[in-house]
Amino acid sequence: MSTPTTEYDSIRARLDDPETAIEDGHRKIEWAREHMPILHELRAEFERDQPLAGETVGMAMHVEAKTAALTELLAAGGAEVAITGCNPLSTHDDVSAALDAQEGITSYAERGVDDDAYYRAIEAVIGHEPTITVDDGMDMIAAIHQDYPDLIDTIVGGCEETTTGVHRLRAMDEDGELRYPVFAVNDTPMKRQFDNVHGTGEASLANIAMTTNLSYAGKTVVVAGYGDCGRGVAKKAKGQNAHVIVTEVDPRRALEAHMEGYEVTNMTDAASRGDVFITTTGNRDIITDDHFPEMKDGVVLANAGHFDVEVNLDQLEELAVETREAREGVKAYELADGRRINVLAEGRLVNLASPVALGHPVEIMDQSFGIQAVAVRELVENGDSYEAGVHDVPDALDREVAETKLDAEGISLDTLTDEQREYMGSWDHGT
Amino acid sequence: MSTPTTEYDSIRARLDDPETAIEDGHRKIEWAREHMPILHELRAEFERDQPLAGETVGMAMHVEAKTAALTELLAAGGAEVAITGCNPLSTHDDVSAALDAQEGITSYAERGVDDDAYYRAIEAVIGHEPTITVDDGMDMIAAIHQDYPDLIDTIVGGCEETTTGVHRLRAMDEDGELRYPVFAVNDTPMKRQFDNVHGTGEASLANIAMTTNLSYAGKTVVVAGYGDCGRGVAKKAKGQNAHVIVTEVDPRRALEAHMEGYEVTNMTDAASRGDVFITTTGNRDIITDDHFPEMKDGVVLANAGHFDVEVNLDQLEELAVETREAREGVKAYELADGRRINVLAEGRLVNLASPVALGHPVEIMDQSFGIQAVAVRELVENGDSYEAGVHDVPDALDREVAETKLDAEGISLDTLTDEQREYMGSWDHGT
Amino acid sequence: MSTPTTEYDSIRARLDDPETAIEDGHRKIEWAREHMPILHELRAEFERDQPLAGETVGMAMHVEAKTAALTELLAAGGAEVAITGCNPLSTHDDVSAALDAQEGITSYAERGVDDDAYYRAIEAVIGHEPTITVDDGMDMIAAIHQDYPDLIDTIVGGCEETTTGVHRLRAMDEDGELRYPVFAVNDTPMKRQFDNVHGTGEASLANIAMTTNLSYAGKTVVVAGYGDCGRGVAKKAKGQNAHVIVTEVDPRRALEAHMEGYEVTNMTDAASRGDVFITTTGNRDIITDDHFPEMKDGVVLANAGHFDVEVNLDQLEELAVETREAREGVKAYELADGRRINVLAEGRLVNLASPVALGHPVEIMDQSFGIQAVAVRELVENGDSYEAGVHDVPDALDREVAETKLDAEGISLDTLTDEQREYMGSWDHGT
Amino acid sequence: MSTPTTEYDSIRARLDDPETAIEDGHRKIEWAREHMPILHELRAEFERDQPLAGETVGMAMHVEAKTAALTELLAAGGAEVAITGCNPLSTHDDVSAALDAQEGITSYAERGVDDDAYYRAIEAVIGHEPTITVDDGMDMIAAIHQDYPDLIDTIVGGCEETTTGVHRLRAMDEDGELRYPVFAVNDTPMKRQFDNVHGTGEASLANIAMTTNLSYAGKTVVVAGYGDCGRGVAKKAKGQNAHVIVTEVDPRRALEAHMEGYEVTNMTDAASRGDVFITTTGNRDIITDDHFPEMKDGVVLANAGHFDVEVNLDQLEELAVETREAREGVKAYELADGRRINVLAEGRLVNLASPVALGHPVEIMDQSFGIQAVAVRELVENGDSYEAGVHDVPDALDREVAETKLDAEGISLDTLTDEQREYMGSWDHGT
Repeated sequence: MSTPTTEYDSIRARLDDPETAIEDGHRKIEWAREHMPILHELRAEFERDQPLAGETVGMAMHVEAKTAALTELLAAGGAEVAITGCNPLSTHDDVSAALDAQEGITSYAERGVDDDAYYRAIEAVIGHEPTITVDDGMDMIAAIHQDYPDLIDTIVGGCEETTTGVHRLRAMDEDGELRYPVFAVNDTPMKRQFDNVHGTGEASLANIAMTTNLSYAGKTVVVAGYGDCGRGVAKKAKGQNAHVIVTEVDPRRALEAHMEGYEVTNMTDAASRGDVFITTTGNRDIITDDHFPEMKDGVVLANAGHFDVEVNLDQLEELAVETREAREGVKAYELADGRRINVLAEGRLVNLASPVALGHPVEIMDQSFGIQAVAVRELVENGDSYEAGVHDVPDALDREVAETKLDAEGISLDTLTDEQREYMGSWDHGT
Repeated sequence: MSTPTTEYDSIRARLDDPETAIEDGHRKIEWAREHMPILHELRAEFERDQPLAGETVGMAMHVEAKTAALTELLAAGGAEVAITGCNPLSTHDDVSAALDAQEGITSYAERGVDDDAYYRAIEAVIGHEPTITVDDGMDMIAAIHQDYPDLIDTIVGGCEETTTGVHRLRAMDEDGELRYPVFAVNDTPMKRQFDNVHGTGEASLANIAMTTNLSYAGKTVVVAGYGDCGRGVAKKAKGQNAHVIVTEVDPRRALEAHMEGYEVTNMTDAASRGDVFITTTGNRDIITDDHFPEMKDGVVLANAGHFDVEVNLDQLEELAVETREAREGVKAYELADGRRINVLAEGRLVNLASPVALGHPVEIMDQSFGIQAVAVRELVENGDSYEAGVHDVPDALDREVAETKLDAEGISLDTLTDEQREYMGSWDHGT
Repeated sequence: MSTPTTEYDSIRARLDDPETAIEDGHRKIEWAREHMPILHELRAEFERDQPLAGETVGMAMHVEAKTAALTELLAAGGAEVAITGCNPLSTHDDVSAALDAQEGITSYAERGVDDDAYYRAIEAVIGHEPTITVDDGMDMIAAIHQDYPDLIDTIVGGCEETTTGVHRLRAMDEDGELRYPVFAVNDTPMKRQFDNVHGTGEASLANIAMTTNLSYAGKTVVVAGYGDCGRGVAKKAKGQNAHVIVTEVDPRRALEAHMEGYEVTNMTDAASRGDVFITTTGNRDIITDDHFPEMKDGVVLANAGHFDVEVNLDQLEELAVETREAREGVKAYELADGRRINVLAEGRLVNLASPVALGHPVEIMDQSFGIQAVAVRELVENGDSYEAGVHDVPDALDREVAETKLDAEGISLDTLTDEQREYMGSWDHGT
Repeated sequence: MSTPTTEYDSIRARLDDPETAIEDGHRKIEWAREHMPILHELRAEFERDQPLAGETVGMAMHVEAKTAALTELLAAGGAEVAITGCNPLSTHDDVSAALDAQEGITSYAERGVDDDAYYRAIEAVIGHEPTITVDDGMDMIAAIHQDYPDLIDTIVGGCEETTTGVHRLRAMDEDGELRYPVFAVNDTPMKRQFDNVHGTGEASLANIAMTTNLSYAGKTVVVAGYGDCGRGVAKKAKGQNAHVIVTEVDPRRALEAHMEGYEVTNMTDAASRGDVFITTTGNRDIITDDHFPEMKDGVVLANAGHFDVEVNLDQLEELAVETREAREGVKAYELADGRRINVLAEGRLVNLASPVALGHPVEIMDQSFGIQAVAVRELVENGDSYEAGVHDVPDALDREVAETKLDAEGISLDTLTDEQREYMGSWDHGT
């Protein structure tokens, strides 16, 4: 079939009291907007230049206040925008409703929907026949390629936000299956450093703390994976006086963690020593029934990677003699010997799916979304020049966003003199 | 008057659905209890030995799950316990109800009551004619001394939890006004290090982050005061990659902060540079109309000290042309030039009064409350040997609690040999 | 001319007491060798397989104990080796003599020689007609290209150790002037992370401390440049409780430093605030007479970049009314108003040219030199397959070295299961 | 005997070229003086007021440049000063000679003397019949009490610099054996924080690094003892990216280290895991033949405590099949199975006795010696009011020094208002 025909209401039709929700959502978005100086700058430009006029942007993102600021910006730039969630637990219904109430924006995102409704919402967005896709986890790109390939001809390109999504897109690209250009927003220096390291690091730890009421000082925190997210979680946990153990499969990352002063070992060894386990790998089966039986009573397991497959909950369920909600957002699995293993947010992304979750910090998303916005603009302006496949965001765009941020912070840099440029470009100076 | 005659219902009578509240409260307390190994150990002993049999303990504490574990422990030790809050915004009604539902415990604590009801609840506790008082901020001790001095004859002694309370008790003691012995629980090495440094540090930052959705990386965080709490807040904020500025009035503390690598300056200078301000002084008027007009648009002010007087909100109100709730728990004051100053939790203790507040971390309070419990036991067993006034908790009790904790963590120490003891005690060894 | 005809004695001929020097040098090399597990492993392989048989390796490196361990390894692999220094102040004469005394090795390096002798020593090495060059700063590659181009035909390839050297080689490559393949050893993940970040960071700070007897706690340390070296210096200085200010010309690096919690500003602003200035840019004129007049009395200037041009000493000399040796390795420049500016190691690399300099830490160089060794082996084995120009070290070689190191440290990793590999390679999993 | 009659020449008589030594020593002292702003300020006052006129100060300190600045200050204040070393390996002969060449100062200190000469030098100082003693390790106080008790009548009082010395003095005091008042300079907040934590921490690590050429990144550093010195060493080692293990005998200190994020265990367990061991206990037999056989090949042992008894070298010698000087300042003990244990500086204080040792950093000693100076002044002015025994330095003096330092750094504090003072002194404010 060429275009989805699914009937699916936008969020406002499904709420009991949409007016209050819109008001609450609007207030949340305003707070975000006020703390997003990069989007603030870009909005002035987008409103003036209307770079997205005539385009339709389909988004599958975590629908909360910061994403809303990006969504508004794209609409302000002239696009028609349709949006839904990229994780059933990360949507804020009030924000979704406040977006849906705006001219040029339709939102289908609803918190806590089942898998069927989740995918129907994605189809509803696709039904708008987007010319540009913006994904966080490539669910929309995948759905279009699998089910609505006829739409691909009119798609200029897409953006992908996450490590995991980019990883999977590259696999798809290698298989020759990716049929339009996609910017690996995740892979920009700005995104990797700030969103993955600082954003995931701070937000994951704060969410775990505020869900469990536990502290990090003196705790042994096991961080699975030492990519950008793992690096951030490990660094921030150490900064809260935890003892951090890192597990890895890659020798260079493992060595890097070791040289940073972390203890590095395998999960089998770490299982019996950790108090808190945080997975950041983007892979599956990181903590399994090889490990559960070794764990201490009362351990806390949380996922800061991507999908809910890093902790193998099926195996844990199998092992457990009883489960119960120990606290809001904490499910306790009791093993036969009475020990309890506490899983946060059903193994989903803890910084997005915990009961108090606010997602990534505002300023962090300002940087990521600044790149998204200029990448979307680039697709419209120069999309023709990109072949189908995964593309790095052009360096000049990434730098543009960094400069915008530094200006907003009032930070002054040195400037290369001509002599310095010449020196850096030369090779005939001696000792 | 010798005993309060106030009629004041316990919490269950004031709730719409006390049964659900009790159930919710019970579940919260169970989580706390499971993560408090010191209280766990002591409970076995208290249940067996009934050291508090015949005593009445009057408590004015933050009534939430961890305090409840202490309250239960005291009751398990044989005491009759009456409890109320020490801050109108820190009570969890469900926990209060769950306590009140237990044999031997009456709880008057209710969240959000006005000043009048707050003090009536304290009077209601005093109406139980406590033989031992346990305070967090000395409100109960003060009320007894001011209004019910006749009760003092039968009071064995008291415990005070906070820096500020101990400070005020010492002032009272110096004035010759303190008429029974009070243990300065706050001043034990265990309490100062763990509760003030780690507990206040981690909890304040997590609460601010989860109330505002802001991050610390790259932020300028101004910490007012470099006592134990300030030290913790500064250290943990640095550990989240903030740039930290410390303000102080004491030269040695200022020098200590300077030598630690923090920037140290006065508040007038810091006012224009900070993004987030956290007061930890226990004093009043730390941030005033000398400073508000210098601040950047969108700054966040939070209090991690004690009372809500550290930020002078009257003056801020005076300056503001408009105020509104920017987010739950965040009040925005808009100045005449459009700049906004965001105050968290009405200037009250952010880690106790923010909308997501859980109070100090569980394990931190396990340590503080372990000391409270053995201090209460000491008052019953040896109260006669203490004169009226502020007393340090005997060192042996503090060490007892440290050892209990290390045992629970499975940490093994070295042991001094006889030769080493002799060496340390001698003075005639040469170079 | 096609081959240098310079007469230049090897180091032993120039020492008063070569036997003692050889003995001292041998002891120094033995210490290094004992703490270089990667070279230890590779040596067993090289001795057995003789991969370099028939080759002549010309080296221009810092001639001290660690480099000696690499030199011995190359000789053990079957090569004839000729070596000289890459910085007149970094040579240890005893190590140079101990190398020269070994079968198959000739060393021309001598500490403190003048420019003329320095370049004559390079020519002497070139006179051996190397088939492989190993540089630290590309002086040998430059000399061959400029003065002995006829030799290029028989050169298989080269290795370059430093950021600055690689930078200049790329410039040369872009100009179409680089006529044989050169591995950018500096650019391997292993080298950048460990040598630049940890090695330069730790060694620079320790050398400054041990030359000046000053401490970092409470000091304001200005780090010019936030590349890998600057990152290391800044991180380690913060870890010693300094207040760190970073200066940069690149917006992304500046933003990264800002997000890490450092103060970022321009040198003009930093000049008046720093106590210690450390340049790490690889560029010239970082600190100039724009900045000297603003500096505090007694400031310390040190270079951890590459050449002695980062601090403009000509301008400083011009400004000074008097200069003297304030301590060994510290030259004090007195300005007209009496303020003194202290320059370490004549503005040369402080971790190599200070009076107590030992160069980079042993284990750090073990990693860098492990890569050098396998890169030289690769040139011999597969040199034909590389075109003239700058090449990245093949990833497999870099990983080989990381694995060797982890094995030596006894660190155990997790291993990807087939299911995990399949998952990471797939793109059709949903949420 | 009442006064020593030992004939012992001052240092100048024992040097081959005293004039060069004096010149070198003078230059070293000038560098120190220039970086000691507190002594600089006090010197102006002492020269003007001559508070020590008529007194004789006997000193047994580490005789190097910083101590010299204190010595000069005391002489400038009107005292006659006689000085010798407090550790045979920490004296700089040139500094000793430069002191001895000054009006009013006699120095007997000589590097590397044997035990007999060491104690004869102390006797030579005592021969000056000091009215005030200044000790670093209480050797002089002990000698006076044991051998020259008749002198005690004319002694006004003394100062003791070290943790260990104060500990032993307190033991002596408890035995009723201490017969004149001694200020526990070590116990002032200023000294404990800055000298012990920052000074010992930074200097020990830099000396170990510059003696061994090893780095800390990725190393396992075992710190024995978590008093102020251990705390500093652990913190700074972590700040260089080491993995730190702490051993302790005291439960509260152990718990504090645990809560800081360090691994805490006993030495038996740590022995097999450490790469570098640093003792900071002030006790004996911390590392013994219980531990040597468990250690890894090539480990480094260093002492940052006080005496050379923390590592039991007799037992190590016993175990070793061979010993040799592996590097300058490093003695390698080879065990029967070929493993080597490297001991730095003969087990003496590594920051004072390593081959490159400069002692504590200049600014750190400025603070400690500022307190020494005002404490000596206090003894002269108010010595009568102190009974025999160990005394804390009056708080006002400690604060005076802190304020002097802050002024010198240009750091501005807040000032308590009258309302704030009243608030802090009151106890009747409510919530």
